[in-house]
Amino acid sequence: MQKMWEGRFKEASSKLLEDFNASISFDKALYKEDINGSIAHATMLCECGILTNDEKDKICNGLNQILDEIKNNKFEFKIEDEDIHMAVEKRLSEIIGKEIGGKLHTARSRNDQVALDFRMFVLNENKEISNLLLKLIKTLNEIAKKNLNTLMPGFTHLQHAQPVSLAFHLLAYANMFKRDFERFQNSFERNNFLPLGACALAGTPHPTNRNITARLLNFTAPTQNAMDSVSDRDFALEILFNISVVFMHTSRLCEELILWSSQEFKFIEISDKFATGSSIMPQKKNPDVAELIRGKTGRVYGNLISLLTTMKSLPLAYNKDMQEDKEGVFDSVKTATSSLIILNEMLKTALFKNENMEKACQMGHLSATDLADYLVSKKNIPFREAHFITGKCVALAESKGIDLSQISLKELQSVNEIFDEEALKVLDLHNSKEARKSFGGTANKSVLAQIEFIDEFLKINEI
Amino acid sequence: MQKMWEGRFKEASSKLLEDFNASISFDKALYKEDINGSIAHATMLCECGILTNDEKDKICNGLNQILDEIKNNKFEFKIEDEDIHMAVEKRLSEIIGKEIGGKLHTARSRNDQVALDFRMFVLNENKEISNLLLKLIKTLNEIAKKNLNTLMPGFTHLQHAQPVSLAFHLLAYANMFKRDFERFQNSFERNNFLPLGACALAGTPHPTNRNITARLLNFTAPTQNAMDSVSDRDFALEILFNISVVFMHTSRLCEELILWSSQEFKFIEISDKFATGSSIMPQKKNPDVAELIRGKTGRVYGNLISLLTTMKSLPLAYNKDMQEDKEGVFDSVKTATSSLIILNEMLKTALFKNENMEKACQMGHLSATDLADYLVSKKNIPFREAHFITGKCVALAESKGIDLSQISLKELQSVNEIFDEEALKVLDLHNSKEARKSFGGTANKSVLAQIEFIDEFLKINEI
Amino acid sequence: MQKMWEGRFKEASSKLLEDFNASISFDKALYKEDINGSIAHATMLCECGILTNDEKDKICNGLNQILDEIKNNKFEFKIEDEDIHMAVEKRLSEIIGKEIGGKLHTARSRNDQVALDFRMFVLNENKEISNLLLKLIKTLNEIAKKNLNTLMPGFTHLQHAQPVSLAFHLLAYANMFKRDFERFQNSFERNNFLPLGACALAGTPHPTNRNITARLLNFTAPTQNAMDSVSDRDFALEILFNISVVFMHTSRLCEELILWSSQEFKFIEISDKFATGSSIMPQKKNPDVAELIRGKTGRVYGNLISLLTTMKSLPLAYNKDMQEDKEGVFDSVKTATSSLIILNEMLKTALFKNENMEKACQMGHLSATDLADYLVSKKNIPFREAHFITGKCVALAESKGIDLSQISLKELQSVNEIFDEEALKVLDLHNSKEARKSFGGTANKSVLAQIEFIDEFLKINEI
Amino acid sequence: MQKMWEGRFKEASSKLLEDFNASISFDKALYKEDINGSIAHATMLCECGILTNDEKDKICNGLNQILDEIKNNKFEFKIEDEDIHMAVEKRLSEIIGKEIGGKLHTARSRNDQVALDFRMFVLNENKEISNLLLKLIKTLNEIAKKNLNTLMPGFTHLQHAQPVSLAFHLLAYANMFKRDFERFQNSFERNNFLPLGACALAGTPHPTNRNITARLLNFTAPTQNAMDSVSDRDFALEILFNISVVFMHTSRLCEELILWSSQEFKFIEISDKFATGSSIMPQKKNPDVAELIRGKTGRVYGNLISLLTTMKSLPLAYNKDMQEDKEGVFDSVKTATSSLIILNEMLKTALFKNENMEKACQMGHLSATDLADYLVSKKNIPFREAHFITGKCVALAESKGIDLSQISLKELQSVNEIFDEEALKVLDLHNSKEARKSFGGTANKSVLAQIEFIDEFLKINEI
Repeated sequence: MQKMWEGRFKEASSKLLEDFNASISFDKALYKEDINGSIAHATMLCECGILTNDEKDKICNGLNQILDEIKNNKFEFKIEDEDIHMAVEKRLSEIIGKEIGGKLHTARSRNDQVALDFRMFVLNENKEISNLLLKLIKTLNEIAKKNLNTLMPGFTHLQHAQPVSLAFHLLAYANMFKRDFERFQNSFERNNFLPLGACALAGTPHPTNRNITARLLNFTAPTQNAMDSVSDRDFALEILFNISVVFMHTSRLCEELILWSSQEFKFIEISDKFATGSSIMPQKKNPDVAELIRGKTGRVYGNLISLLTTMKSLPLAYNKDMQEDKEGVFDSVKTATSSLIILNEMLKTALFKNENMEKACQMGHLSATDLADYLVSKKNIPFREAHFITGKCVALAESKGIDLSQISLKELQSVNEIFDEEALKVLDLHNSKEARKSFGGTANKSVLAQIEFIDEFLKINEI
Repeated sequence: MQKMWEGRFKEASSKLLEDFNASISFDKALYKEDINGSIAHATMLCECGILTNDEKDKICNGLNQILDEIKNNKFEFKIEDEDIHMAVEKRLSEIIGKEIGGKLHTARSRNDQVALDFRMFVLNENKEISNLLLKLIKTLNEIAKKNLNTLMPGFTHLQHAQPVSLAFHLLAYANMFKRDFERFQNSFERNNFLPLGACALAGTPHPTNRNITARLLNFTAPTQNAMDSVSDRDFALEILFNISVVFMHTSRLCEELILWSSQEFKFIEISDKFATGSSIMPQKKNPDVAELIRGKTGRVYGNLISLLTTMKSLPLAYNKDMQEDKEGVFDSVKTATSSLIILNEMLKTALFKNENMEKACQMGHLSATDLADYLVSKKNIPFREAHFITGKCVALAESKGIDLSQISLKELQSVNEIFDEEALKVLDLHNSKEARKSFGGTANKSVLAQIEFIDEFLKINEI
Repeated sequence: MQKMWEGRFKEASSKLLEDFNASISFDKALYKEDINGSIAHATMLCECGILTNDEKDKICNGLNQILDEIKNNKFEFKIEDEDIHMAVEKRLSEIIGKEIGGKLHTARSRNDQVALDFRMFVLNENKEISNLLLKLIKTLNEIAKKNLNTLMPGFTHLQHAQPVSLAFHLLAYANMFKRDFERFQNSFERNNFLPLGACALAGTPHPTNRNITARLLNFTAPTQNAMDSVSDRDFALEILFNISVVFMHTSRLCEELILWSSQEFKFIEISDKFATGSSIMPQKKNPDVAELIRGKTGRVYGNLISLLTTMKSLPLAYNKDMQEDKEGVFDSVKTATSSLIILNEMLKTALFKNENMEKACQMGHLSATDLADYLVSKKNIPFREAHFITGKCVALAESKGIDLSQISLKELQSVNEIFDEEALKVLDLHNSKEARKSFGGTANKSVLAQIEFIDEFLKINEI
Repeated sequence: MQKMWEGRFKEASSKLLEDFNASISFDKALYKEDINGSIAHATMLCECGILTNDEKDKICNGLNQILDEIKNNKFEFKIEDEDIHMAVEKRLSEIIGKEIGGKLHTARSRNDQVALDFRMFVLNENKEISNLLLKLIKTLNEIAKKNLNTLMPGFTHLQHAQPVSLAFHLLAYANMFKRDFERFQNSFERNNFLPLGACALAGTPHPTNRNITARLLNFTAPTQNAMDSVSDRDFALEILFNISVVFMHTSRLCEELILWSSQEFKFIEISDKFATGSSIMPQKKNPDVAELIRGKTGRVYGNLISLLTTMKSLPLAYNKDMQEDKEGVFDSVKTATSSLIILNEMLKTALFKNENMEKACQMGHLSATDLADYLVSKKNIPFREAHFITGKCVALAESKGIDLSQISLKELQSVNEIFDEEALKVLDLHNSKEARKSFGGTANKSVLAQIEFIDEFLKINEI
């Protein structure tokens, strides 16, 4: 078929080129943004006297018809149409005639049109993912509310460190996802500017008013510089990075869900609804969902590095390399959306095995730090020395095959005579948790404040 | 030497371990943050009655003495000290005695201490880089002010597209660096929270007040959850990403500086102060600085992917893997700082060869779009058809070996009779540039508004 | 529907899980490998007496029928089938009955089955890409043969450095792609081992003979360790890396094609068949293909980092994360294949503008090194001093606005009296090129040897 | 100071430039390669009659003196010397005078000189790392020899799957590192070609003989094309990739060492020599080394993506961007070397807790597959049905709170009457392991063959 730009060309495109060059196979996903952007553009052109009312109406009606056709799968996308913009425009000319249809492209170019469509897509998905993050935070906060007294070992280096509550542990994730949410929010505000009207790269001689288009499409304002507008893909990099950090966080959570599901930990049982079996080992119950989400971290990191690489060293303004900006974003966005939905449901239906968690606390001398703290605050021993004495007590317990929380006063005194009855009290695991009352600590008082803080945050964000 | 944590160990560390494990060789860069954080911590402990005034004074004096020693290169860092925290603490005990020195570590752990030091470092560097970005934006804006009428070809696909002004082209970069600045600003606000007081992972039983420490160190507030506080490295990822986007932008600018310095373009001459020669080819003048900055893009992208990878799938809370967080950040920060400084100076001293830029505009039929626009607005021809007719005119000019701006009316009319005298006017290159008066366009009116906008932005940010 | 592994589960899978977990949407691409692998497995089971001849025949006939159904688009892939293995096996049981159909999975698991299918796919694509590399090398060599005397500036730092021939320049790329080819060859040999028979992770008690299967499927031998066999994805990482290096090379070539197509260089004209126009600027002829290939470098780098990330820190043996191994490989392989085909065709049809290249040689004092070399070899001046004297001559030519090749003897002697007539001879550009006769140099003699070397290489590889 | 290339420059370098541009701070690591390369170059120049014997001797003696000076820390590296090549050459002229010293740079350039130095460095490190891989493989094989009968659960999805031996499990890693070794070997052979003599980019008019230099430096042959020789960095990318795959493997091994060190697993105890404690929790024993190696995976992946990014889209031949090639390689090489050494020592001294591993096998119904296999081979039930029946048996055992290996015949028969006495035999865990006699399986017979294969491999490689 004839290309829109073939005027000066002597030889027809190679079929190879047509296939290689076309983006329609993936950018058709932008059809809504493309049509809504065109409707706003036509409306602006009319308000500025560039289109008559009648022309504008014909164009908008035609565009709405195309929207319906696509939604109802009655629109045939063809490789010869190159991209979604051409596909829509060609169909518009079929519906309302070439003469009026051809006027829609006045005062714009594919360069600013694709910048608009893609940016609208990214901003919409930003809202969607933000919303899913809020739901996940809410789930974590609700589980926390029920598990203030669920004792579990707090880990560092995957070694038992100090007793904490499950509530406290899960709130760490709530705080991560809250930062993620804020990162999305901020990115939205920074990028909510209209690129349309930049045209090919330098603006237009037509008497347009970009403020009108901005208003119609809910942008804060038009972008400042036309050349930047068509060559800017910061908004795409930002969503790729923001999703990468989300997956860094979910990969940590999923790693723990996988560990906790193992025969060795048995801290949790994933619901049958979200687990799978083996084709050869009949006894297996596998935490596939958590593994897949963890595995998908690779994919979203890769999409980030892809676009960073593609954008490197491109001279201004638009270069065809930039057509490579979309598929990675589509993939990361879809990955984030589906993963956050299923992770949320999986958490809601998971069974936490509280008794196993508490039992695990009796391994690893979890209250050792408490003993050291007691030596410091009650016996006025410098911390470093207290640490050393406690280390000796731990070694003694180890050699007797018992946990430090089970040691006798006499045994303590064999290490150092300074110990008294209170030492045994601080070694109790529940006491240990409740002692950490500092702001942000694991004692119920501190955790309740954290839960309330999250509740407040969720309320402000209307969920 | 004896390790602080050796109480329960039976066998001495391998020398291999000591070397492999130690971070002192690079984290000594955090000495200022470490000491200032300790001073604030001691002050808080005193205000909360955990240290006496006398103890606090001794500790602070000792710490200030160490600060002086390090600044004056009188402090010997040893591999056996493992890290900056241990090195400072050990020296403190030497100065003021073990008994009082040992009390400084009350109600904190290395886990929250390193989280504090590193975060303070990142926030400080954030300010530094933000400031360098403002300076660079200012330079670009100043050059723009002098080059409103410097005509140059605007490029897409590295092909001549439309005539623009150098001012307009450089302002595209000013807008990129402005977004970069905003990204740094926002990251600062999101991460300006105090992790100290989280201790190992769960808070402390000591009656501390983290709000005091936060206030003393200019943090907005303490962090909400202790476990999150010691395992959070989002702030480090953010500065790595923000620097990556800065380099994506500088790589584009430097690519253009390199192109413009070539024999083929000759748009610019880099000052001898910022160019180098060849060891074998005596005639060479190479744009090394621009090449190096472009090349360093790889390094900062790599540092980003490094930390994303390292943090993937780590269970809570602190894991030793996280010691790998620093070197990449140190490297990216130093790379950004030195590159932004030299890029700014190189731009200030570069010579733009205006006559060559303008001459280049006479290649590539740059006013072709204007001819199409004229057909649309003056002759009421639908854009797509106008585009096609203009394509034929371009082909004609090509075949005659002239630029479209040099075509005669008669020749135009041989393509289509509709052309009249005004067509020749719109084909003039300066007219073409001045016609693009739309918001964000390349006409002087639009560019002046953009310059003023940047001036306003710089004024608000006090530069 | 009932899952193969549901025996021990009490609750049905969530629909969310089914969608999230299924790989059928992409791993159906492995249908040929899956069926051929199963036929070989059944044949081996029969030779080992585990299946009767009749059972084997029924199974193989059934599998061949399924192969036909899929090839002819008569096979319906359903999300409930999870993956290609289950889809094929379920259909087999429909065709030949559950009793015999169920026996095919004897002595294997999905873990080794997918390892086999994916490895066979990667090895086949390795061959395909290797072949395309040979074709590209051949094209470069053929163009070289025609351009031994096409003079062009050799660049360093994108500055004119020394005169070279186009043949010589293109042979640099032929050598890059030759290394790429060798990398693929070697990867094939290292990974051509059969994983099937590893079963879930530990082998099988059935009296199988993996050597038979290896022979039937053209593998060198079976893999050595079953646990490694199901958890190894090195072969996938290798093809992702090898493709990344190919694109590093093509990105350099395409960067040059884009530069050379610019108004400033005009060294080449891409055929209309492989160029595109602009929707708004009628005069544009854009090197889209070269830009797209350059841009796709990001995508293939991203796929590499994705799988490296996914595989990081996975405990043995199979983990569901590894399902994420395929899509990136499919994408990189398709990207490489389509890019190499079109790049080859584009090069074949491109027009090199020899006169422009030669004209460009008269800018930049390209024979300066020759003058320095002359001072060294004919006048016995130490190289460093010769370099300095020549620098002065260049400065003189610059100040007179001429190229060094146009300088007079008198002018040379004004710099240093040592110069004689021969100096003018060495300054001639063609002489300069022909002087570089060293092994690997740009003189025709050296270049002809390089061409012959490539011809020999292509002959050995039967193309 | 005066730069070698300052002949044509009017203005002195900025101090900023000097610092930014210099590579001496890191490329001084190449001093040995630089000097040895120069000695070979001088020898070749002499054999070709370009230097006299006396000149060659003076140069070589001078260079050997510099080598001594550097080795003995008597050489002062200055930022003004730019790079190692200039530093050595300047010193040479100080020692033997400018006249003869200056002749060494005849028929070479910094472009091919740095290509040579860096390539020699990479090839040397390739040998070093290869050797460390062999040692690690040997350690794994030796531990395997002692643990043929150490029963442990084989995992998939981090769930207990089937009983295997520790020997078998560790041999999976031996096979990974063997592939790594082969990758290094192959890379060595592909890149062992001499770039020196390519000069700036196009060869030299001097009557050199690159075969002599190649022979002197143990290269297979000189490179084929001069332009490729100075712009090729494939060898550096290959070592970065090869190290990345090594770390992908070590990250998996270290993940397991960390898991196995946890209170939950207790499969291993890291020697005190390679573990550390906590500054606040006296009871902790942390697997820091394994964590650090796992964490360093990020760093080596980052270095790979850095150089891939830097090299993207660089036009031929040398560009200053390529100066960024070294630091990442230096870092990855050092990281690999130190990690492989300490990992090897840590494994040698680790204590495997065999009784805990065996006890763990009694959780998770590890012999379920054996029961299914028994139904298939002894009772002629199709595998899929056998799998389903076994699933029911597992559910029964689960409901009784016992492991499947502890079930009674009567209970089995309550699920399906077909079961007989032999069923109990196949459910025995040791029997289960010993049953998997297939090639590559976990039975002792198969594992012994694997050990012998590795022994043979090590013998061939002379370790």
